[in-house]
Amino acid sequence: MADNEQDRKSRNVPDKVWVGFDLGGTKMLAVVFDENFQVLGKKRRKTRDKTKDGVHLDRLADTIRMALEDAGADESAVQGIGAGCPGPLDLKKGVILEAPNLGWKNVELKDYFATQFDCPAEICNDVDAGVFGEYAHGAGRGARCVLGVFPGTGIGGGCVYEGKIFRGSTASCMEVGFMQMATEGPAAGVGPVGTLEGLASRLWISAEAAKAVYRGKAPNLAKLAGTDLASIRSGILSKAIEAGDKVIEELVALAAQQVGRAIGSLVNVLAPDIVVVGGGLAEAMPRLYLSETQKGAKRNVLPSLKSCFEIRIAELGDNATVLGAAAWVKQQAKGSGI
Amino acid sequence: MADNEQDRKSRNVPDKVWVGFDLGGTKMLAVVFDENFQVLGKKRRKTRDKTKDGVHLDRLADTIRMALEDAGADESAVQGIGAGCPGPLDLKKGVILEAPNLGWKNVELKDYFATQFDCPAEICNDVDAGVFGEYAHGAGRGARCVLGVFPGTGIGGGCVYEGKIFRGSTASCMEVGFMQMATEGPAAGVGPVGTLEGLASRLWISAEAAKAVYRGKAPNLAKLAGTDLASIRSGILSKAIEAGDKVIEELVALAAQQVGRAIGSLVNVLAPDIVVVGGGLAEAMPRLYLSETQKGAKRNVLPSLKSCFEIRIAELGDNATVLGAAAWVKQQAKGSGI
Repeated sequence: MADNEQDRKSRNVPDKVWVGFDLGGTKMLAVVFDENFQVLGKKRRKTRDKTKDGVHLDRLADTIRMALEDAGADESAVQGIGAGCPGPLDLKKGVILEAPNLGWKNVELKDYFATQFDCPAEICNDVDAGVFGEYAHGAGRGARCVLGVFPGTGIGGGCVYEGKIFRGSTASCMEVGFMQMATEGPAAGVGPVGTLEGLASRLWISAEAAKAVYRGKAPNLAKLAGTDLASIRSGILSKAIEAGDKVIEELVALAAQQVGRAIGSLVNVLAPDIVVVGGGLAEAMPRLYLSETQKGAKRNVLPSLKSCFEIRIAELGDNATVLGAAAWVKQQAKGSGI
Repeated sequence: MADNEQDRKSRNVPDKVWVGFDLGGTKMLAVVFDENFQVLGKKRRKTRDKTKDGVHLDRLADTIRMALEDAGADESAVQGIGAGCPGPLDLKKGVILEAPNLGWKNVELKDYFATQFDCPAEICNDVDAGVFGEYAHGAGRGARCVLGVFPGTGIGGGCVYEGKIFRGSTASCMEVGFMQMATEGPAAGVGPVGTLEGLASRLWISAEAAKAVYRGKAPNLAKLAGTDLASIRSGILSKAIEAGDKVIEELVALAAQQVGRAIGSLVNVLAPDIVVVGGGLAEAMPRLYLSETQKGAKRNVLPSLKSCFEIRIAELGDNATVLGAAAWVKQQAKGSGI
């Protein structure tokens, strides 16, 4: 053992690493961090092996092993594995109750990782992990209460309250996209009318933008994406706005203001110190998105709370979930602190 | 000392009591509880001595002494004093920052009580204290997460999460009445349009009810209260409904459904196990109010959360605040548990 350790040190191999894992519907990402959460190595792969049916957890473990190899770290150096997963989850038992995109049911991921790598493991909702990442190492660093809002195809949210992820008992919570903001208006998929997702998700913007293209009101977007809703993504919207499509800018502004209205209501309820706004839209158009959410929130926040909070754009991008999941398992393993 | 103790026991005088204090804009209430939170004595008085100006904390301490006398308890038996206060408060320092109804500013109530009675003291928001009371000894007993919603002249709220009051840093939070539920509609006082208070408070119901009386549509309410908004209180509304005023029943139902909509959004965000609905309206018409809030919530809650929560009518009525404040100071003094 002593020899091994000396050997490791001479090769500059880290003896303590934390692994963050992001289980997506299409891709998964494993990142190996040192004790200070600097990235040592990573591996991204498709989540499913299309030649096989069912649940193949060995593919997940292999991905972690590849990331460890990339980091030049031994398996014995792993201090803990934190995984951000799609919900609903049984957080106590560490079970993915259902992941419709993967066709999974009742997958005991926490136990699997803990056994495979002989270390502490935690699973949490992927958005929660992202918010914890922003709290631990990003835009919400050290705040007493951080609310995260992530507008994308849907609109997810999370809250870190006094150093801990605010969670439901078995399901996740902070489903900000399903706050009902109006008594009328479009529904988000099969949900009720007037929800924030129905009024302000990227999908709403894309559909309205496609209509604008069809009507000949967005010439630049017409060149960039045409009327195909699936092609009208955040980066493309941003380019069309830069090229001068005023009507697209107005759509994004309107959606961001609705998100701001919801943030205003949530500030009245949760009194967070920092609201982190992330996701594709906010990161593609940070200045526009920030000022419009601020505008929407300002109208709606109680006077006594107006000076108590700040809205910030997320800092960690795609790394938020892996970083947060790794920081979370470290905090849980060590009892406190980040 | 030993003699004193024997003497006390022979007179059946409690040797350990907890005091709950409710500081209202008009009246204050002090209640003395034994270790099991049975009421031993109480005193209710007007908050202000109208012959004097300014802050007279001695009047508050005297009220507690009168309640102790009523309980037959010595001052030395007081283990702790918890006070529910109107906000905003500095919770850490135990200071009432401002109580507009009393004309108070920066009143160090926690230190005053602690010094006067030589015991631990805590102050908290009065609604928070009420929700903690329902969590500790009422309709939310023992739940992991209790959301309290109290529709009255305004609509207050509170949350007890994993045994602790969920709070803002200096201000209170859970200002449920200031969630924006619609993009149009009446404002509550000077606030933005479409807030829950504007759409569903007792004041909204009373104003609509007065209109109905004026139009000749509510004959029973006409006899009971006429068109005077100030006379149309919860008990009167309940009587008019019992007497057959359908239009009044519809108004209360509509308001309760709006409260239910807000509860639905909050269930999606906070994932509480139990939602306690209290206040004058809910307590005067528990059956109607409960079924209509359930109806409003059901439409709005995510399928995955539908079976995870229950709405209940509050059990403790006017005692919730004093009981909760006393239970809170006991929990804080003892470190944990209730």
